[in-house]
Amino acid sequence: MTVLVVGSVALDSVETPFGKADNVLGGSGTFFSASASHFAPVQLVGIVGNDFPIDRLQSAFAKRPIDLDGLEKADGPSFRWRGRYTHDLNAAETLETHLGVFSNFSPKIPEKFRRAPFVFLGNIDPRLQLSVLTQVERPKFVACDTMNFWIQSRRPDILELLKRVDVITLNDGEARQLTEQYNLVKAARWIMERGPKLVVVKKGEHGAFMFTESTVFFAPAYPLESVFDPTGAGDSFAGGFIGYLARSGELTEANLRRAVVYGSAMGSFAVEKFSIDRLLEIGPTDIARRVGEFHRLTSFEQEILT
Amino acid sequence: MTVLVVGSVALDSVETPFGKADNVLGGSGTFFSASASHFAPVQLVGIVGNDFPIDRLQSAFAKRPIDLDGLEKADGPSFRWRGRYTHDLNAAETLETHLGVFSNFSPKIPEKFRRAPFVFLGNIDPRLQLSVLTQVERPKFVACDTMNFWIQSRRPDILELLKRVDVITLNDGEARQLTEQYNLVKAARWIMERGPKLVVVKKGEHGAFMFTESTVFFAPAYPLESVFDPTGAGDSFAGGFIGYLARSGELTEANLRRAVVYGSAMGSFAVEKFSIDRLLEIGPTDIARRVGEFHRLTSFEQEILT
Repeated sequence: MTVLVVGSVALDSVETPFGKADNVLGGSGTFFSASASHFAPVQLVGIVGNDFPIDRLQSAFAKRPIDLDGLEKADGPSFRWRGRYTHDLNAAETLETHLGVFSNFSPKIPEKFRRAPFVFLGNIDPRLQLSVLTQVERPKFVACDTMNFWIQSRRPDILELLKRVDVITLNDGEARQLTEQYNLVKAARWIMERGPKLVVVKKGEHGAFMFTESTVFFAPAYPLESVFDPTGAGDSFAGGFIGYLARSGELTEANLRRAVVYGSAMGSFAVEKFSIDRLLEIGPTDIARRVGEFHRLTSFEQEILT
Repeated sequence: MTVLVVGSVALDSVETPFGKADNVLGGSGTFFSASASHFAPVQLVGIVGNDFPIDRLQSAFAKRPIDLDGLEKADGPSFRWRGRYTHDLNAAETLETHLGVFSNFSPKIPEKFRRAPFVFLGNIDPRLQLSVLTQVERPKFVACDTMNFWIQSRRPDILELLKRVDVITLNDGEARQLTEQYNLVKAARWIMERGPKLVVVKKGEHGAFMFTESTVFFAPAYPLESVFDPTGAGDSFAGGFIGYLARSGELTEANLRRAVVYGSAMGSFAVEKFSIDRLLEIGPTDIARRVGEFHRLTSFEQEILT
């Protein structure tokens, strides 16, 4: 089944202890699409300025089932982000953010995208996320992401959004900020009481929890020997998670658990190189092998104590 | 098989957001014994001052297979620790530490304890940990803990100790400090190159990794709705881990993995009440139930991608 994603398409400049990259492809929509397209067809809605190297994006995605017809070209500069990571790769230091044409983004969902059964609302203004939901037709599954900035400045809109989504993905700090509950179990319950049937709490290098009304599932982050560039890990996670669900279309507990693991696997690939480079290199065998490694990482046989 | 533990026996005063407790039983030897004794007989070596309520310890451990004959009574005040936790329960703020008689502790292993097949060297001066190893007779399995203070002040002794232990348990910050490797996979490899066949990296609320030469296992911390008092979680983990191994005596990969889970389960019980209170209440059914919950928390079925 097809996945519609609405998110940013940006140019990133990143410094890590291992190197630097200038003006490489970035943004939540880009990472999500590169990841989800390993599992399902993707329809991307975003905006770029007239300085954006569209041909680079097209050629990166040439072999992937990603429809770029929803990518609006506007007059003005593209969204650019410049960031730096020190040895604690869990936290980015933002050096510059230029929203450019993204600051006037008003997502227009092309007619042919409106019946996508799976929808991912990337981290944009919750008012825009809500406007997307008025344009699509009865999606089977809607997921959204958000961030500290919107939780602080657009709280009522986020609460409105929560009523209309099936799952929200957010990091542990954001879950605590949104719910004013330090304990993540309580934070997840707080959120589920306001709409979503599922809450995915991403903890970066510390893994991810998925809460449902009656179950909790946890997948660690894969213990990589070299994390190269953490940018985009969260959106790559979301792409693997939702892409995997869209692939079979079945929202069973077993599938949801596997989806978290596929999300974690895709996040672990994303951080191995700059930008979406690693996500474009890998294939089904790499993904299956890494999912197998996740299985070995946490599996144990229970024993009855005598 | 029997477990010998050498560690502190102390009186703790703790404040958490949920209450306070004054002069309750604490110390690494106390938590370890309360936890490990659910699985195997324990022999405790430690020191207390003449102000210590020995009868309270005896009565707490009355129904447990814990031999207190190695508990030395010395002239002077007992080890006392006063600490406070704010809402971020992962980090204790130490308000007062009075080492008392513990500062002159020189562990003397009673004759009848010297053939214990399992040995846990709790977090004490590595020179004392080494002196214990000269007193015991060919133990099957030796584990040690340590802390930032010793890593900084007794580095050569810790390196000496590493040659003589099978496993070291330490937290992520300590692993990074000891090895000067930020990446935990590299840190574990650094340590294993210096002696131990196993490294257990405890990440508090973020779970624990066990590294062997060729495998990695991860168990999350149990997502409790109410963490009451984190004091002693690490030593309770060690008690469950080593106690479980001592119970069967088999050091297979499958058993080691289960041991990490039993350790995590015991850590999760320890934090539900002050001091060792919860560890004393629980029985085999509680432990088996929680281990089952850990299994459900991380288990997923692999699927072959077609």
